[in-house]
Amino acid sequence: MTADSNTLSVSVLGLGAMGSALASALLKAGHETTVWNRSAGKADDLVAQGARAAATAGDAVRAGELVVACLLDHASVHEVLDPVAGDLAGRTLINVTTTTPEQSREIAAWASDAGIAYLDGGIMAVPHMIGQPGSSILYSGTEDVFQQYKPVLDLWGDSTYFGEDAGLASLYDLALLAGMYVMFAGFLHGAAMVASAGVTAREFAAMAAPWLTAMTGEFEGYAAVIDGGDYTVPGQQSLEFSDLGDILTASAEQGISTEAVAMVQGLIRRQIDAGHGAEGFARIIESIKQPG
Amino acid sequence: MTADSNTLSVSVLGLGAMGSALASALLKAGHETTVWNRSAGKADDLVAQGARAAATAGDAVRAGELVVACLLDHASVHEVLDPVAGDLAGRTLINVTTTTPEQSREIAAWASDAGIAYLDGGIMAVPHMIGQPGSSILYSGTEDVFQQYKPVLDLWGDSTYFGEDAGLASLYDLALLAGMYVMFAGFLHGAAMVASAGVTAREFAAMAAPWLTAMTGEFEGYAAVIDGGDYTVPGQQSLEFSDLGDILTASAEQGISTEAVAMVQGLIRRQIDAGHGAEGFARIIESIKQPG
Ligand SMILES: NC(=O)c1ccc[n+]([C@@H]2O[C@H](COP(=O)([O-])OP(=O)(O)OC[C@H]3O[C@@H](n4cnc5c(N)ncnc54)[C@H](OP(=O)(O)O)[C@@H]3O)[C@@H](O)[C@H]2O)c1
Ligand SMILES: NC(=O)c1ccc[n+]([C@@H]2O[C@H](COP(=O)([O-])OP(=O)(O)OC[C@H]3O[C@@H](n4cnc5c(N)ncnc54)[C@H](OP(=O)(O)O)[C@@H]3O)[C@@H](O)[C@H]2O)c1
Repeated sequence: MTADSNTLSVSVLGLGAMGSALASALLKAGHETTVWNRSAGKADDLVAQGARAAATAGDAVRAGELVVACLLDHASVHEVLDPVAGDLAGRTLINVTTTTPEQSREIAAWASDAGIAYLDGGIMAVPHMIGQPGSSILYSGTEDVFQQYKPVLDLWGDSTYFGEDAGLASLYDLALLAGMYVMFAGFLHGAAMVASAGVTAREFAAMAAPWLTAMTGEFEGYAAVIDGGDYTVPGQQSLEFSDLGDILTASAEQGISTEAVAMVQGLIRRQIDAGHGAEGFARIIESIKQPG
Repeated sequence: MTADSNTLSVSVLGLGAMGSALASALLKAGHETTVWNRSAGKADDLVAQGARAAATAGDAVRAGELVVACLLDHASVHEVLDPVAGDLAGRTLINVTTTTPEQSREIAAWASDAGIAYLDGGIMAVPHMIGQPGSSILYSGTEDVFQQYKPVLDLWGDSTYFGEDAGLASLYDLALLAGMYVMFAGFLHGAAMVASAGVTAREFAAMAAPWLTAMTGEFEGYAAVIDGGDYTVPGQQSLEFSDLGDILTASAEQGISTEAVAMVQGLIRRQIDAGHGAEGFARIIESIKQPG
């Protein structure tokens, strides 16, 4: 801590698009921020905003009570941190690099062995959203670290803590990203369908964004059925009713790929073929939970 | 028209979940509503609300200046309407049954030959949304019909007209439904991922709905790139960056199906393999437009 008790010494390792956005938010809030990047040049903008550039990762680690790692992947985290584990001992490491749950748990165990307080993070935002409404960051690992640094974490977006299992934030992160990428493919499939009739992607986006937003309202009902464990509850849209034959036919007629829609149809068909056609659509989660 | 010049004689053919909701909205607005359903019993609730039940489809058609068909599919529309084409001549038919674009065009041509004014509709809502905010209905076909009956159509939801080609509303409808079903599969994939860590579907839905809603904000940017035709515009997330390997690994580690995510990864890989890895994510629409 410096003279101002609210000012923290934070070091950010990794100044890609995301690491730079995180460092920038720290600087705006007046924190004493040290930055480091493997290749040169990426610190310049941040230095102009008041950051100190460290020559080595070790120098950066030694300058901060809190060290934030925002690197490419699990391998790069070890590549950067293994040689400076001794310097990290007794400090706090928050790693917001995207990794799998198993990889997060592995780094948490490594940190624990090295005497480093560890919190794992998953960023649900793109860089320009950091510090803006809609930015959400998921955390798991050491609860004390989350509680102590929450005011800092909140500079980046809404902070949610899931539990001591360091893999939980990554699992949530990847599950939400899976939903996002699959939704993007669905949107682009629709855009490709109407493109053949001369509709622009922008025109389609203007309809698809509010439509899919409205349809996220159905998630809660599906979830209630899934958690209840009874797919025969009345009032649901049945699997048979959800046959995607028309969409597949229309897609084929437009000469475009059917794979996005065929994927969903496959999940539906497996449940119908197993005798569940009259049950609710939410049952396709069983096709996912038990791969064919 | 009856005494009250705002009151219309409307007949609804097909009293499934959707047809009943449409008829109910007409009754609430005070229209003289006649209803018919193939099998008995489905008119009772509507009769209690003030509807007249017709014994045959022909009786229903003759009772309404406007006839609304809300049947199961294209085949059932012909099965019900072919025998009463003579009665329909000189009247207006609005068909909101879900069909493919080609099927809509076929029915429009059939109606034209029979001297029936025809409008095709695609309902973007579930029955309980009819007449509520968020309900949207797409129309194409005879513009005069759309303009004349717009006050009636607006009772069901926002009414949008796309053009004289009767297939356009169906194409939009199926494209938006494709986006919805693919998004649902993505949501359920995410719910299956976190389920293995003891997270309930309801807890996941509470995070996924606002997250995916926020991410629909990316559609406009993707659309601008697609319409611009240049996937190398700076500032985009690249295809290489969008590798879904972590999500596939985490899904496999949880023992669940990878097919939803593998579908998107396939679309991404085809563009990377064709040498476009450094270009923007929106480029996967090219994988869809030109099937592999
Ligand atoms: N961008 C987003 O929209 C977004 C959203 C959510 C989460 N994330 C996650 O945030 C993390 C960083 O993303 P980003 O957008 O900042 O990526 P980026 O712009 O590609 O930057 C990658 C960073 O990692 C460094 N790096 C890569 N390999 C390294 C190694 N072996 N040793 C040392 N440094 C290495 C790079 O250094 P050089 O400059 O030397 O190459 C660079 O600083 C990723 O895990 C990403 O998944 C990003
Ligand atoms: N429900 C929704 O969420 C929703 C949303 C958007 C669009 N739609 C579309 O709206 C239309 C109706 O859907 P719905 O939910 O009302 O379906 P539904 O509850 O399954 O009802 C189907 C209706 O079609 C009739 N029908 C089926 N085959 C027939 C035949 N050969 N001859 C005469 N009548 C026949 C049924 O009569 P019986 O009672 O005699 O079987 C019933 O009235 C469909 O095209 C659907 O895709 C529905």
